[in-house]
Amino acid sequence: MSDTESTHNHLTNPLLKGLGESDTLAINERSKALIAAGKKVYKFGLGQSPFPVPERVVEALRLHAPQKDYLPVKGLPILRETVAEFHRKKDGVSVQADGVLIGPGSKELVFLLQMVFRGDIIVVSPCWVSYIPQARILGKKISIIRSSYEHKWQLTPTLFREYLDKRIDKNRPALMILNYPGNPDGVSFHEDELREIAAIARKNDIFILSDEIYGQLNHKGNHLSISKYYPEGTIISSGLSKWCGAGGWRLGTFTFPKELYWLCDKMAIVASETYTSVSAPIQYAAIAAFKGGLKIEEYLWNVRKILFSIGNESAKMLQKSGIRVHDPVGGFYLFLDFSNFAEKLHEAGIESSKGLCSKLLDETGVAILHGSSFSRPRKEFSARMAYVDFDGARALAAAKAIPLSEPLPEGFNKKYCAKILEGVTQITRWVASFND
Amino acid sequence: MSDTESTHNHLTNPLLKGLGESDTLAINERSKALIAAGKKVYKFGLGQSPFPVPERVVEALRLHAPQKDYLPVKGLPILRETVAEFHRKKDGVSVQADGVLIGPGSKELVFLLQMVFRGDIIVVSPCWVSYIPQARILGKKISIIRSSYEHKWQLTPTLFREYLDKRIDKNRPALMILNYPGNPDGVSFHEDELREIAAIARKNDIFILSDEIYGQLNHKGNHLSISKYYPEGTIISSGLSKWCGAGGWRLGTFTFPKELYWLCDKMAIVASETYTSVSAPIQYAAIAAFKGGLKIEEYLWNVRKILFSIGNESAKMLQKSGIRVHDPVGGFYLFLDFSNFAEKLHEAGIESSKGLCSKLLDETGVAILHGSSFSRPRKEFSARMAYVDFDGARALAAAKAIPLSEPLPEGFNKKYCAKILEGVTQITRWVASFND
Repeated sequence: MSDTESTHNHLTNPLLKGLGESDTLAINERSKALIAAGKKVYKFGLGQSPFPVPERVVEALRLHAPQKDYLPVKGLPILRETVAEFHRKKDGVSVQADGVLIGPGSKELVFLLQMVFRGDIIVVSPCWVSYIPQARILGKKISIIRSSYEHKWQLTPTLFREYLDKRIDKNRPALMILNYPGNPDGVSFHEDELREIAAIARKNDIFILSDEIYGQLNHKGNHLSISKYYPEGTIISSGLSKWCGAGGWRLGTFTFPKELYWLCDKMAIVASETYTSVSAPIQYAAIAAFKGGLKIEEYLWNVRKILFSIGNESAKMLQKSGIRVHDPVGGFYLFLDFSNFAEKLHEAGIESSKGLCSKLLDETGVAILHGSSFSRPRKEFSARMAYVDFDGARALAAAKAIPLSEPLPEGFNKKYCAKILEGVTQITRWVASFND
Repeated sequence: MSDTESTHNHLTNPLLKGLGESDTLAINERSKALIAAGKKVYKFGLGQSPFPVPERVVEALRLHAPQKDYLPVKGLPILRETVAEFHRKKDGVSVQADGVLIGPGSKELVFLLQMVFRGDIIVVSPCWVSYIPQARILGKKISIIRSSYEHKWQLTPTLFREYLDKRIDKNRPALMILNYPGNPDGVSFHEDELREIAAIARKNDIFILSDEIYGQLNHKGNHLSISKYYPEGTIISSGLSKWCGAGGWRLGTFTFPKELYWLCDKMAIVASETYTSVSAPIQYAAIAAFKGGLKIEEYLWNVRKILFSIGNESAKMLQKSGIRVHDPVGGFYLFLDFSNFAEKLHEAGIESSKGLCSKLLDETGVAILHGSSFSRPRKEFSARMAYVDFDGARALAAAKAIPLSEPLPEGFNKKYCAKILEGVTQITRWVASFND
């Protein structure tokens, strides 16, 4: 805590005490400082899509630049209809425009949901960096179900049942947040797991916020939504940030079933007194994104091929070095478990995931984000690597020259994602050095 | 309260109970329904600039459409510098880029400020529709200083002193929100009033949020900021929504003095866990707006001439009819006081400002917003009229054909803002009918 902060603590909301800038941003700042000092940094910390926004979506923004009216709080009606149609087509669920809420990023919508919903919030660890700080800001308690490497870092039906058995007030309303393909882990659920989790949630009256922001980045294009098996209790979260490469545009969507419209309505009331509505030109442009079509599907196809290729090669290299990591299924993250090196790390004076990442950055220039940011135990040697530090536009152009039905050729990663392979090699050499 | 709402009340935040969609939106919906039913409606309810976004700002958005990166939480550095320079030039205050916070609308920033600041919030009634609902959502208490027609609906040094004398815990930190040119009243402060209010605030350690979103729409272009007289304790609120006609773009700014950077920092922490940052293409475009230049000044000059002309003619007509209303000084609102007709209104079974506006809409098609939306007593016969229901692009083009130094010619309002004059005539006839 800085001097300034302590001086003014009596003038600020006590719930904010100790909260700093997010760890994701912090590692970004530190990387920049190292770069400024002339050091080569592998920026595997911040999770931003390396790909450009599809050209036709950018064109739509240009076309609609003069749109200046305040749009309805829940969103532009035609965009809401397009998002509903998107989920109907892609996920096979029967949602309607009336159930779609457009927000300035799905993060803001998760915050509103936490503010509005009265009941327990349940998350699965490792989990995305913001769920828990949001709850803290709101003075809410969050229940954490801890997963592990053995469970592929995911919720399993068994873990879910064990949690519910131990729950003290079984009648308290509850909402569980699931995120798949996962940030920080890059893995996802099998159909039978989703069915079983859905059945348990239904039986126990647990609502689900299904954060599927990486859904369209399932590397094989076969994302499955739990909403299919538990439609009446599931809210689907999506947005432009990941699959459309438009994180900086700030547009997220929540899609509610009829049974949960009351929750959508309450969120809209808070929205009307806070952000009002999402930027009009951005909403018009988003129609082109969610509407899709051949060009967008080609873009997605190539994006997925690239992420599959570099993600899996990275995972293989790391596995060979003794780091425990699962083959990625979607998104652009790997969750690294250094527990095989625990003893050596302790000998080197490293006591936490934060210490590990700090030392790795100093000694190799590789920036990855420590596991404690994702609610893992402080002393567990885990960390998230985002395999996004390459020129996405260049890689995409190269991929486009290869027939869609063919895999990327040998050497593609080395040519277009060289920095990822280099950084991964740095990590493997670094852990090997502990065995010397 | 709807059936659905009551059924799910136990599942939602009790602070939201009874909060509905904002009155501004409600009147908009009702007007639309009447229009759909074939009725002519004078849309004086919603306060949206009728003018297009200046062409060079729209061009800047087109140019920067491909910007896709997440921008820093507090805003794009060059935009923050431009906003600081804007206030230095326009308001003669010495603020720095480091003190600028960019948000998705100043409404969101006011909300964050209320969330972060620990202490009393003071507003002056009549006040903007959202300050008080925001406080309710946050479970905060707000203190209201009541003004009146005689005080031009504004805070006066006397009212301020009286409030402070009666304050129970004089040592509790406090922040007062001032809004001028005012929504809903269209009036502003004289220099001597600002000086005196500033001196009182300084003496009593009261921070000020100076909501100057209509500052550049001072009809004579001579807006004065209280920040000039109380720099160390004042946050200036501004944005693109009003003077730049870009309400739907959602970009607001707060500018803090060095002494209040701690507050800005805390707000940025909450921002990083909620909306993250403002849409990147919008931020790049906003640089062109805040940078200004000859084209923007010409645009502003003409916008002001039109608003001055139609605002003052409307006020004169209303005054003649016996409605109490002040000549507007800036923005695009008039706050109408029907108290001269109180007895007749009661005889007609009208008991509240809401009832008055409802009857006026039904009988004349004129939609204005009842005073209780602005925290006026329910039974006071007051209402806000927004004089914006005309084709702003057409009026602007016509105004551009007239030398900047000349006033708009006789008949301009009738030709380009006909619906405003018609609607005002409807109001005056309606009140006259009570004297029959």
